[in-house]
Amino acid sequence: METILKSAKKSVVISSEKPTVLIGERINPTGKKRLAAALVAGNLDIVRQEAEAQVEAGADVLDVNVGAASVDEVDMLPKAVRLVMETVDVPVCIDSADVDALLAALAVHRELAPEGKPLINSVNGEEAHLEQVLPLVAEYKTAVIGPTMDDEGIPDTSEKRLAVARKIVERAEGLGIPREDVVIDCLALTVGADSQAGVVSLGAMRMVREKLGVNLTVGASNISFGLPDREVINWAFLAMAIQNGLNCPIVDAAKVRPAILAADLVMGRDDYAMRYIKAYKKRTK
Amino acid sequence: METILKSAKKSVVISSEKPTVLIGERINPTGKKRLAAALVAGNLDIVRQEAEAQVEAGADVLDVNVGAASVDEVDMLPKAVRLVMETVDVPVCIDSADVDALLAALAVHRELAPEGKPLINSVNGEEAHLEQVLPLVAEYKTAVIGPTMDDEGIPDTSEKRLAVARKIVERAEGLGIPREDVVIDCLALTVGADSQAGVVSLGAMRMVREKLGVNLTVGASNISFGLPDREVINWAFLAMAIQNGLNCPIVDAAKVRPAILAADLVMGRDDYAMRYIKAYKKRTK
Repeated sequence: METILKSAKKSVVISSEKPTVLIGERINPTGKKRLAAALVAGNLDIVRQEAEAQVEAGADVLDVNVGAASVDEVDMLPKAVRLVMETVDVPVCIDSADVDALLAALAVHRELAPEGKPLINSVNGEEAHLEQVLPLVAEYKTAVIGPTMDDEGIPDTSEKRLAVARKIVERAEGLGIPREDVVIDCLALTVGADSQAGVVSLGAMRMVREKLGVNLTVGASNISFGLPDREVINWAFLAMAIQNGLNCPIVDAAKVRPAILAADLVMGRDDYAMRYIKAYKKRTK
Repeated sequence: METILKSAKKSVVISSEKPTVLIGERINPTGKKRLAAALVAGNLDIVRQEAEAQVEAGADVLDVNVGAASVDEVDMLPKAVRLVMETVDVPVCIDSADVDALLAALAVHRELAPEGKPLINSVNGEEAHLEQVLPLVAEYKTAVIGPTMDDEGIPDTSEKRLAVARKIVERAEGLGIPREDVVIDCLALTVGADSQAGVVSLGAMRMVREKLGVNLTVGASNISFGLPDREVINWAFLAMAIQNGLNCPIVDAAKVRPAILAADLVMGRDDYAMRYIKAYKKRTK
């Protein structure tokens, strides 16, 4: 199953037959005081810098999120999306819980890339959310991320997360959104608080991939929240998740690209290790 | 299913319910000129140093192999096993293709640890090998590693490797060796030469674990032979393999222990990340 994202100049294909697609996570003020303060002040310089740095580090798609206290997302999200689209060529993932902000950003996207197709992050399994966001996805013919949570929160078993994923996919199909445009996020919570957090998420990925066939994303770094030496944990989780069908994680490309290239190599998606060796040479020259 | 190894003073339990057991690979002259030369000269100082260093680095079991050109294994293997057993407390894995050397080393093991139980590395699916080695395993009540290769070589599909594993397990059981004392090695070849090498090995692990229930080892570093930045590839492969049931890889503990602790943590085998955090503190203090 292929999810195709498009900017004005570039297409990215998410498919289990192809190498893993990296969605850059760094344009997001959560936990980043400097970016949050700049956004409150209406200053987008950091957004431009992060856009360039992430693409240089190997990000294939950029998540754009401006949600922070005192930020007017309806004003700032379209501005940030415009700046990212004018700075780099990769497709964008428009990330907001505010439907008006999504709408304003989608208008900018349509203006700058009339034939483009962004990813919307996200529509979860909450009834109100499905009713608000899915019609936008249908109208603007975007792809959309569906995190496996509903009105009762994040389920604590793989089976229940599969059930939420199924609900999102079915509701989307009911509105004429093709299944391949729904990318499911099985969600990773920290193993520091719940030793089963990884197993539940990984199990859900395997089931969703097997039963629904859709492509999978996850915000991988949550798995190690609160723990030391986080990258080692993130790398292990990503390798296992990629084995289970994860193919477009939301990550810090500069930190995890070597591990993801290695996982693709082990999974048989890099003949003669050409991508792996090329990235190694670039990193060490 | 539990494989229990014993030295004179220590038991190690290999089980998918427990953290991964690390079998230290460094007492092996393959590719190590200095060790090979020392063994030819009858000098075992490096063996002692490697035994201490590996246990310090977190190895739970030590593989002991003295096979190199011009080394008399029947003389040197029992000496090396004796030295390792006198230097450190962990169980040993007696590693030789020479049956007389295995016999001589087993006699030493019985002398120093009458109640002990070593691992023998290995008996593969070749007819002659099964006939020679399995009776020793039965007589000395050891555990044994079974690499999935037979008279036709190393099969190129997961299904065929499962078939060889089944043959080894059945032949062992026919001699009264309990199934839990057979540890299967699904073998890793380099992905640099064959892009499917990882997929075939990982698939075999999942099948052997599911169909035969036995514990699994692998010499993990082969996966990255000939490639740069090998540890990143080895880490990715180990994480995926541990997810598929690998629970006692043969590794360089100093290089891969952080990745294996992370994989155990993600797999839900390290409550509150206590082992992971403890090892991190030791490494960085």
